[in-house]
Amino acid sequence: MDTVSLEDARRVIAAAEARAAEVGQPMNVAVADAGGNLVAHVRMDGAWLGSVDISINKAFTARAFDIETRALGENAQPGSQFYGIHASNRGRIMIFAGGIPLRRNGSVVGAIGVSGGTGAQDQAVAEAGAAAL
Amino acid sequence: MDTVSLEDARRVIAAAEARAAEVGQPMNVAVADAGGNLVAHVRMDGAWLGSVDISINKAFTARAFDIETRALGENAQPGSQFYGIHASNRGRIMIFAGGIPLRRNGSVVGAIGVSGGTGAQDQAVAEAGAAAL
Amino acid sequence: MDTVSLEDARRVIAAAEARAAEVGQPMNVAVADAGGNLVAHVRMDGAWLGSVDISINKAFTARAFDIETRALGENAQPGSQFYGIHASNRGRIMIFAGGIPLRRNGSVVGAIGVSGGTGAQDQAVAEAGAAAL
Amino acid sequence: MDTVSLEDARRVIAAAEARAAEVGQPMNVAVADAGGNLVAHVRMDGAWLGSVDISINKAFTARAFDIETRALGENAQPGSQFYGIHASNRGRIMIFAGGIPLRRNGSVVGAIGVSGGTGAQDQAVAEAGAAAL
Repeated sequence: MDTVSLEDARRVIAAAEARAAEVGQPMNVAVADAGGNLVAHVRMDGAWLGSVDISINKAFTARAFDIETRALGENAQPGSQFYGIHASNRGRIMIFAGGIPLRRNGSVVGAIGVSGGTGAQDQAVAEAGAAAL
Repeated sequence: MDTVSLEDARRVIAAAEARAAEVGQPMNVAVADAGGNLVAHVRMDGAWLGSVDISINKAFTARAFDIETRALGENAQPGSQFYGIHASNRGRIMIFAGGIPLRRNGSVVGAIGVSGGTGAQDQAVAEAGAAAL
Repeated sequence: MDTVSLEDARRVIAAAEARAAEVGQPMNVAVADAGGNLVAHVRMDGAWLGSVDISINKAFTARAFDIETRALGENAQPGSQFYGIHASNRGRIMIFAGGIPLRRNGSVVGAIGVSGGTGAQDQAVAEAGAAAL
Repeated sequence: MDTVSLEDARRVIAAAEARAAEVGQPMNVAVADAGGNLVAHVRMDGAWLGSVDISINKAFTARAFDIETRALGENAQPGSQFYGIHASNRGRIMIFAGGIPLRRNGSVVGAIGVSGGTGAQDQAVAEAGAAAL
């Protein structure tokens, strides 16, 4: 099972930070490994305190189900097939945009989680990070 | 109180695994006893990490209320009579398809919980397991 | 990163069960993968309900620190260097005998956790399981 | 309120990583701000999974009480004045070596938490990090 290294995580985070600076919104950025465990996290100056937990858990969620949290969220709305999934895993499941699996050679090797702005901002920053793997 | 034995649980899990293999989706499968306590769990290779907790808690939920989690979910939607029940029991209540009570001679003797695919896949695999009791 | 498969976990659990039967004490046996996530669990008929959580978390702990839980416990006594470690990781750290890392080709690829008897019994059963990897 | 910036945190972490490399033991290193909230975390390749939570909470603890966790631990032994404090704050209080307040101009502006080796190793690495503020 291939997994991200700390060097990988730092490259992903650096790309995410650069994108957040362009967007003009400070962010929390976290990277989890293939086991869903945290590898690295940064909170940019001025970013929300409540987003520490959210960024770490968006990364966990994206690896836990090998899916973007935005897509999971679409399936977790009232009336949808996974409604209620956010109550599982001791409060670690995040069902809004900002978590993206990290893939290498076709395998999920970890995930990035971003929190600090609008859903669209979080998603854009996460995509920039994921692209840097 | 009649309750499932480990041998029962293994038979149920084996049937669920066989159905999951047919469906082509690796699953987490758990069996709880008449007390709602875990008897056995397996995570098939490649199944989602986040589904460990969900499968165990779907089994708990199905026995906790003697109801399929799919049916409980219908009553737990916004505006419905049990909306909010997923906040109870310290995060153990799952309100989407995949949990089914196990019955023998008219009594609930345990439950199966399945997680790893779509709601329809989880339900189909759980039904196959329940039928093997 | 090498990790245990479900087939590996079943072989480990079968060996542990056989040893538990010799010892004459029903046990909970759990196997975690290289990421600390549960692969499989069984509760033998008559084994303690409270040991479900303990067996799963002994396996987690043994992988989380790549150490036998018995050895961690020696370092977690009052006055020792890791006293208080059992308060970390949301209550998942077990500091008494029964958790052993699973090694293959020099790497830790998972862990076994056993709970259901005395410390010496749990340890003996876990050793039998670990030897079967 | 003066508090560490992300740049400060990275300088502290870099010094801690350099010391950990000298010691030859991979570590988790976390830095919290003046509010006790995480600013940055890294898990060096091969460092214990269970130390993610511990490093973050050693930093929290050192700021929460403006004290080194090693010193808090001395007062938290059975029979001592703070025995039992590790049960407070939802499992976030760490009472063994590796957490150190970060001071600037006489004020505590954050804290570093290190976990991954013996108590003496964690302390040495944390001191190296703290000295780099």
